[in-house]
Amino acid sequence: MIDLTLIGIGSGSPGHLTREGAAAMAVADLILIPEKAAKSDLADLRRALVAEVLVTPPPMTSFPMPERRVENGYRQGVEEWHDAIAAQWEAVIRAHGAARPALLVWGDPSLYDSSLRIAARVARRLPLHLRVIPGITAVQALCAAHAIPLNDVAQPVTITTGRQLSDNGWPFGDRVVVMLDGDCAFQTLDPQGIDIWWGAFLGLPQQMLMHGPLAEIGPKIIEARARARAAHGWIMDTYLLARCALP
Amino acid sequence: MIDLTLIGIGSGSPGHLTREGAAAMAVADLILIPEKAAKSDLADLRRALVAEVLVTPPPMTSFPMPERRVENGYRQGVEEWHDAIAAQWEAVIRAHGAARPALLVWGDPSLYDSSLRIAARVARRLPLHLRVIPGITAVQALCAAHAIPLNDVAQPVTITTGRQLSDNGWPFGDRVVVMLDGDCAFQTLDPQGIDIWWGAFLGLPQQMLMHGPLAEIGPKIIEARARARAAHGWIMDTYLLARCALP
Ligand SMILES: C[S@@+](CC[C@H](N)C(=O)[O-])C[C@H]1O[C@@H](n2cnc3c(N)ncnc32)[C@H](O)[C@@H]1O
Ligand SMILES: C[S@@+](CC[C@H](N)C(=O)[O-])C[C@H]1O[C@@H](n2cnc3c(N)ncnc32)[C@H](O)[C@@H]1O
Repeated sequence: MIDLTLIGIGSGSPGHLTREGAAAMAVADLILIPEKAAKSDLADLRRALVAEVLVTPPPMTSFPMPERRVENGYRQGVEEWHDAIAAQWEAVIRAHGAARPALLVWGDPSLYDSSLRIAARVARRLPLHLRVIPGITAVQALCAAHAIPLNDVAQPVTITTGRQLSDNGWPFGDRVVVMLDGDCAFQTLDPQGIDIWWGAFLGLPQQMLMHGPLAEIGPKIIEARARARAAHGWIMDTYLLARCALP
Repeated sequence: MIDLTLIGIGSGSPGHLTREGAAAMAVADLILIPEKAAKSDLADLRRALVAEVLVTPPPMTSFPMPERRVENGYRQGVEEWHDAIAAQWEAVIRAHGAARPALLVWGDPSLYDSSLRIAARVARRLPLHLRVIPGITAVQALCAAHAIPLNDVAQPVTITTGRQLSDNGWPFGDRVVVMLDGDCAFQTLDPQGIDIWWGAFLGLPQQMLMHGPLAEIGPKIIEARARARAAHGWIMDTYLLARCALP
């Protein structure tokens, strides 16, 4: 039996790592680090985190992240992509004869992340016991940075994607968190009566925060986001929209 | 200026505490522990956590949690209750002359928790600088324990309360997390085509997990929940409902 652990490492700050996350790193006999062709310093951040937390880190091995294809539609592209990543995980685990491999998952493994689906694929080809360590999500990081509640008292909140927002409009209730938004989908809404709390690079040294009425702050966010993205070569951002005033 | 820190401590396991949460505890000069009249061992859990994490813990002081009144309606009851709690915080901070007081907030301070609203009230009467440390929510703990994703690929998820569910029915999208549900509000839904992933005492030694088709598992959860509640004298539970099969 191979004990595979998905460790939620939080969304930016090494301070987000939990005690059980650190303990799981320490007992792993291999840490798999996905390496993207271009983009971001996320692989380096993961390595730095391990080095910061553990005096004697387990071996870390990187593998090249396959590219997602778009020819055959979104859904099929994602399926094939997960298959390809699963094949990489399997190959690395086999090559190292790892008994306790671990992956460092950005944020929390349950939220807009494919690791659980990839692990399910690997489990069809290797005798796998899966363990998941929860992590601080970008949603928590956003609310903490702004010191705001996610919910209004006893009210619901919906978490959705930029794509969903621009395709289907405002989803539900008075509070919405938007993730995975490369295009500032808030532009597609009538800004009247909406407030926005926006955060980029949350938990990282280059963290940016902006908030205010969407009508006023929206255009400033678009501008600031474009500038930051150009400066750093990448960006990760998320935001809360509220239709009623936050207390 | 008084530096007040709200420290998200995660939802049950001492392993949920983050590195920055532990660091914030260590630099606090007073930890405020709310003490409820009856119910739960949450105050003891908080004290045990501090003792486990810190060799030389700061002074901890408990204060009695005011009761929430119900005579004048829900909203006003909550407002007055927050006022009363804020008065307690203020009194304790003044009495100890604390410069860096901290509160240990269950789960994450942003999610169905009043600490931020109470802190806003205290800030009207004391010169306060507020800092929020995010924590692992019961939502993350639930998904991790079941090793399931919260979202379907690129789909939204709504987090809501038991009251909302029974008053207003299914909120939105295909996945819903329900919290603050003392009455198994899932009973009010037509169970056809709905799967449930339920967890109680997540992260605690008495953790319970059940999942399956709502029609079949719903009644078993009601039974198991009642038994566990009777046995322990209290219970905290949450669940994910999905209208499409989880992968
Ligand atoms: C693939 S999802 C992964 C989410 C992650 N599993 C979590 O729990 O937060 C990536 C999206 O998360 C958000 N995100 C993650 N980290 C972030 C950060 N440090 N600052 C701002 N947004 C972040 C962005 O919306 C980004 O598009
Ligand atoms: C007042 S809310 C606080 C939520 C908390 N701030 C968080 O981030 O999870 C309490 C509700 O959270 C859920 N909850 C909190 N801790 C839990 C646990 N250990 N197991 C199951 N449910 C929990 C239950 O639905 C409970 O009714």
